[in-house]
Amino acid sequence: MPTLPQRIHINEEGPREGFQFEKGAIPTSRKIELIDTLSHTGLDHIQIVSFVDPRRVPGMADAEEVVAGITPAPGVAYTGLWLNDKGFDRAVATGRLHIEGLLGLSASDSFLKRNQNRTPAEQIAAQHASIEKLTAQGVPVERGIVMAAFGCNFDGDVPPQRVVELTRQMLDIAAEHGITLKSMTLADTMAWATPLSIQRVVGAVQDRFPKLEIVLHLHDTRGMGIANAFAGLQMGITEYDAAVAGLGGCPFAGHGGAAGNVCTEDLVFMCEEMGIETGLDLEALIDCARLAEDIVGHPLPGSVMKGGSLRRLRDKLKAA
Amino acid sequence: MPTLPQRIHINEEGPREGFQFEKGAIPTSRKIELIDTLSHTGLDHIQIVSFVDPRRVPGMADAEEVVAGITPAPGVAYTGLWLNDKGFDRAVATGRLHIEGLLGLSASDSFLKRNQNRTPAEQIAAQHASIEKLTAQGVPVERGIVMAAFGCNFDGDVPPQRVVELTRQMLDIAAEHGITLKSMTLADTMAWATPLSIQRVVGAVQDRFPKLEIVLHLHDTRGMGIANAFAGLQMGITEYDAAVAGLGGCPFAGHGGAAGNVCTEDLVFMCEEMGIETGLDLEALIDCARLAEDIVGHPLPGSVMKGGSLRRLRDKLKAA
Repeated sequence: MPTLPQRIHINEEGPREGFQFEKGAIPTSRKIELIDTLSHTGLDHIQIVSFVDPRRVPGMADAEEVVAGITPAPGVAYTGLWLNDKGFDRAVATGRLHIEGLLGLSASDSFLKRNQNRTPAEQIAAQHASIEKLTAQGVPVERGIVMAAFGCNFDGDVPPQRVVELTRQMLDIAAEHGITLKSMTLADTMAWATPLSIQRVVGAVQDRFPKLEIVLHLHDTRGMGIANAFAGLQMGITEYDAAVAGLGGCPFAGHGGAAGNVCTEDLVFMCEEMGIETGLDLEALIDCARLAEDIVGHPLPGSVMKGGSLRRLRDKLKAA
Repeated sequence: MPTLPQRIHINEEGPREGFQFEKGAIPTSRKIELIDTLSHTGLDHIQIVSFVDPRRVPGMADAEEVVAGITPAPGVAYTGLWLNDKGFDRAVATGRLHIEGLLGLSASDSFLKRNQNRTPAEQIAAQHASIEKLTAQGVPVERGIVMAAFGCNFDGDVPPQRVVELTRQMLDIAAEHGITLKSMTLADTMAWATPLSIQRVVGAVQDRFPKLEIVLHLHDTRGMGIANAFAGLQMGITEYDAAVAGLGGCPFAGHGGAAGNVCTEDLVFMCEEMGIETGLDLEALIDCARLAEDIVGHPLPGSVMKGGSLRRLRDKLKAA
C-alpha cells in the first residue's frame, strides 16, 4: 500500500461555500459568529466571503460587512474569492483580507460560461490581465486552479490529459509574466470524481509536473468526498480545501442534494485516526459544525458531528 | 496502486438493518413493498428480517408476517438473522427463507453481553451447540463473523491480532465438527474503522488465512463507510454487506447519528464508475432508496439518490 503523508494542511472554505449556497437569508452577525468560532480551531486559512454580483449570489451581498465584523485571530489568514477586477478591488478595499492571486481555467466550457460568463479565450485573456493588475499592486500570484477537473454536469467526462493541458496553459501564462506557480488546485466542482479518477488525474499531473504542489478541492454530492480524499492521501497530496459540516456548493454547478465540500471535521477525523497530523482541534471543529447547522437552520451532511469522535469516546472509556 | 477487483458481490441488508433500527412503527405492508422492489434490482441475496425478542426489538415483531407476505423473485436468496435456537427455529418455520449457518464471535465482550446477553465462554459453547443443531438438520455452516472487529463503543480499540485470534477460534470450532469455513465477515459494528485499519485488520487476517474469503460489513456512522469500502477493494475484498439508502444500525451498539450500513447505491455508484461490476441496476436501487425514505418518513444518509447518478446524466448529455 502507498505510504500516507505525515501531515496535511486544510484550507477551510465553509463560510464562503456555505453562505453562497444556502437559500434562506442568514443574518450577518451569525456569519461572523461562525467565522470567529472557526478562528479558534487551529485553522490558519479561512475563506470567508466571495465578492460577486449580489443579484446572482444574494447570500454574499453583505460580504464587506462580514469582513468588517470579524475579530481576526493571530496567525489566521482570512481570504475572499473574486472572479473579476471589480471583485478583486472590493476584496482589497476591505483592508482586512489576505490577498493572493489565483489563476483559473475550467475543464468545462459550459461551466465557465455559467460561472464566470466567459468563453475560454476570454478567460485566458482575463488571466493575463489579472496577473498584470495583481503584480503591479505587489500581490503574489502563486496558485492556479482547474475547475471541473473531474467531470461536468453540463459537458460530461473530462480526460486526465485535458487537466494536464490546462495546468500547462496556466504555467505558461504565468511564465510569460515571469512567474512560477507553486500550486495547482484540482477542483471536483461538480462531484464527478471517484478514488480511481483521483488517482488517474492527480497521477497524470504529477507525472508531467513533479515539482508542482497539487491541492484537492472536493465536493461530496455523490458521497465520494472522503474516499476521494483518502485516494488523494495515497497519492501524497497534503493540501485540501474543506468545509465545516460539509457546507457549500457552487450555485452555478447544477448540483442536486447536499452539494457541500468534503466535510472538514470528517476529514480531520479520518486523518487523525490514521495518524496523519492536521494541527486542528477536532472537538472544536465538531462544535463549529453544530453551530453551522444551527445557523443555516437545517441538518448538514457532516457525519462525525452526529456519530461522535473516537478520541472523546476513548477518554470516557479510560475514565470509567 | 493496488489493482481493484473486476467484480464484487453485495449482500443487501437494508430491510433487516433498517426495520430493526427505525424508531417509529412501520406497517408490515410497506416493509414488504421495499423488499419486493429490491427484488428487481439484480440483488441475489437480501436479508429481510431478524428473529429476535420483540420486547427488545419491536420493529421485528412482524418478522413472520413480512416473510409470508413477500413475492419471492427467481434467483434471489432471502435470509433472516437469528441469535439463538429459538430464532433459528422461527426462521426455519417460515419455510420461505434461505437458511445457512453463521458462526459468530465478538471482539468486544461488552458488546456481546449487550447484543446477545452472553459471556465469551457462553458464546463459544453456543457456537458448538449451533453447529450440532444445524448440521443435524442438513443446514450448511460455511460462514463466520467477527463482530466489533474494528473497535467498540464500550470496550475501545481492537488490535488486529485479536481479530486474527477470533477467526482462528471459529475455524477451530468448525473444524472440531469436520467443517471448513469458507468466509469470514469482519463487521465494523460500531463504525470505528478507517481505511488504514481496514488495511491492517484485513491484511492481518489475509496473511494468516490466505484461503479464507473475507467479507466486509461496514457502518457509516462516522462518514468513513465508502472510503473503508474503497480500502477493502484495494485489499482485494469482493464481498460486501450494504443497506439501500444507508438504512440500519444495531440497536445495542450505542450509535449516535445515522448509524446505517454503508449505502448500497453509493457503493454501487463508486464501483461502476471505477469499472467494477456489481451486477446491480443503479437506477433501480436509487428508486428503492427513495422508496425507503418514503417508508421510514425521514431523510436517509444515501448521497447518490440525492446527487443523481452520472450514467443518467451522461445519457441526457448525449441525447441533448
